[in-house]
Amino acid sequence: MTRSELIAQIKQKKSFLCVGLDTDLTKIPEHLLDEEDPIFTFNKAIIEATSDLCVAYKPNIAFYECYGLKGWESLQRTATILPKDCFSIADAKRGDIGNTSKMYAKAFFDPQVSGFDFDSITIAPYMGKDSVTPFFEFKDKWAIVLALTSNEGSADFQNIENAEGVQLFEQVLEKVNSWGSIENTMYVVGATRGEAFLKIREHAPDHFLLVPGVGAQGGSLSDVCQYGMNKDCGLLVNSTRNIIYASKGTDFAEQARIEAQKLQKEMQIELEKAGIC
Amino acid sequence: MTRSELIAQIKQKKSFLCVGLDTDLTKIPEHLLDEEDPIFTFNKAIIEATSDLCVAYKPNIAFYECYGLKGWESLQRTATILPKDCFSIADAKRGDIGNTSKMYAKAFFDPQVSGFDFDSITIAPYMGKDSVTPFFEFKDKWAIVLALTSNEGSADFQNIENAEGVQLFEQVLEKVNSWGSIENTMYVVGATRGEAFLKIREHAPDHFLLVPGVGAQGGSLSDVCQYGMNKDCGLLVNSTRNIIYASKGTDFAEQARIEAQKLQKEMQIELEKAGIC
Repeated sequence: MTRSELIAQIKQKKSFLCVGLDTDLTKIPEHLLDEEDPIFTFNKAIIEATSDLCVAYKPNIAFYECYGLKGWESLQRTATILPKDCFSIADAKRGDIGNTSKMYAKAFFDPQVSGFDFDSITIAPYMGKDSVTPFFEFKDKWAIVLALTSNEGSADFQNIENAEGVQLFEQVLEKVNSWGSIENTMYVVGATRGEAFLKIREHAPDHFLLVPGVGAQGGSLSDVCQYGMNKDCGLLVNSTRNIIYASKGTDFAEQARIEAQKLQKEMQIELEKAGIC
Repeated sequence: MTRSELIAQIKQKKSFLCVGLDTDLTKIPEHLLDEEDPIFTFNKAIIEATSDLCVAYKPNIAFYECYGLKGWESLQRTATILPKDCFSIADAKRGDIGNTSKMYAKAFFDPQVSGFDFDSITIAPYMGKDSVTPFFEFKDKWAIVLALTSNEGSADFQNIENAEGVQLFEQVLEKVNSWGSIENTMYVVGATRGEAFLKIREHAPDHFLLVPGVGAQGGSLSDVCQYGMNKDCGLLVNSTRNIIYASKGTDFAEQARIEAQKLQKEMQIELEKAGIC
């Protein structure tokens, strides 16, 4: 999916919601556990209940990989039903030396080789340029590079300052900016600290940002929009637990829709306030 | 495998060789491509030809993941034939927020859940403490954390200095040292710059180091030993291309053995020089 197609989806759906598909067998409704592929059955119901309210889906690959072969089967089935009008994110946080990152790119971007055709993959930048650039070699595919994450440990390294007072995540933004473009690069920026977006936007005013941490992890949507939105929206705000685990009953998909709808409405207000739709 | 078991293997085999199983369908002998599972058939022959000469095997997960479900099947078959007396490394470079890293730990360490029972996994440290520590919760399992890698892009971030002149990789060593112990933590240190080991050993004198980059990538084994060996050896030196792609003919396993033997002999000399065996 291209940048302009993504922006068109955001305007049409009046939403910049990304639904996280971190499907955990210990958290989904018990009645699904008798199904042949409970993870896929759950995902299918969630997708059908939310696809008109969101513009992206983000399966976190760890939640599939942990079940070995069976998990990869569930992921493959899920990938085939991701709606074409939604941006798909393989949240895999991969990254290796150049020739190996190429293999990871094929794993998620080349359906002829791997069976997967995601629009994007999340990337850990620690290994530098040749670990990131192979993901840019695929047309209309995106690398979503970790910049400032929302977890407790993010400060351990990401906030380290160099002699000029520039933090590591800022240096990641600057360097990755010079390797890719706003047409193939996004950044992961956690929502737990709204004001952090000011600094991000100094370095990446036009990029799309993938924003986890709204809701269950404590971030506020209005803060994110106040400090992080740009003229094209420039945000994909992810919500997982609040939506997909809204109920453990047979009404889980219905309740997921209600939660997604709440967020979509808040997002619509923000988009209208900013004159985007 | 425990630290003392690993040291015992090194002394017994007079080797600290790790064979990389980065099995690429475009590089293995053509006559294998007619097999039902060429990757597994290749790996099996390589393992049988080298298992008395090395103490570790390291499949790079990207080389399996890129073939989707079929690749994961090849990896699973390969994992079942890794010899019990060899340390197994899932070279996956994973890392995510705490509850997700737990899933990755299960993916490689918990055979009940995933079918895999590797001794160790490589970890990217960018996301900090909670992305690393879940891997320590499994008994006799290891996190092998990226410190100073051997690729071109390693300098982009790993060598960034803070105001006190301490480089990022040094800060990774110091912080990760405080989260784990020499019984469950190793570091990836590239071999391309032998003297870099001096600085590594200042921060991690007793840890085992996983050392890629000897051979095809240009690092010298004697440099690595001069600057990096400690009283317990403290090194697992990886070789991949020189060994597994020594020949594209039907003699590939035989030639792999010859190359592995050369390295084992060099290693024996180094171990004897250091009085370790």
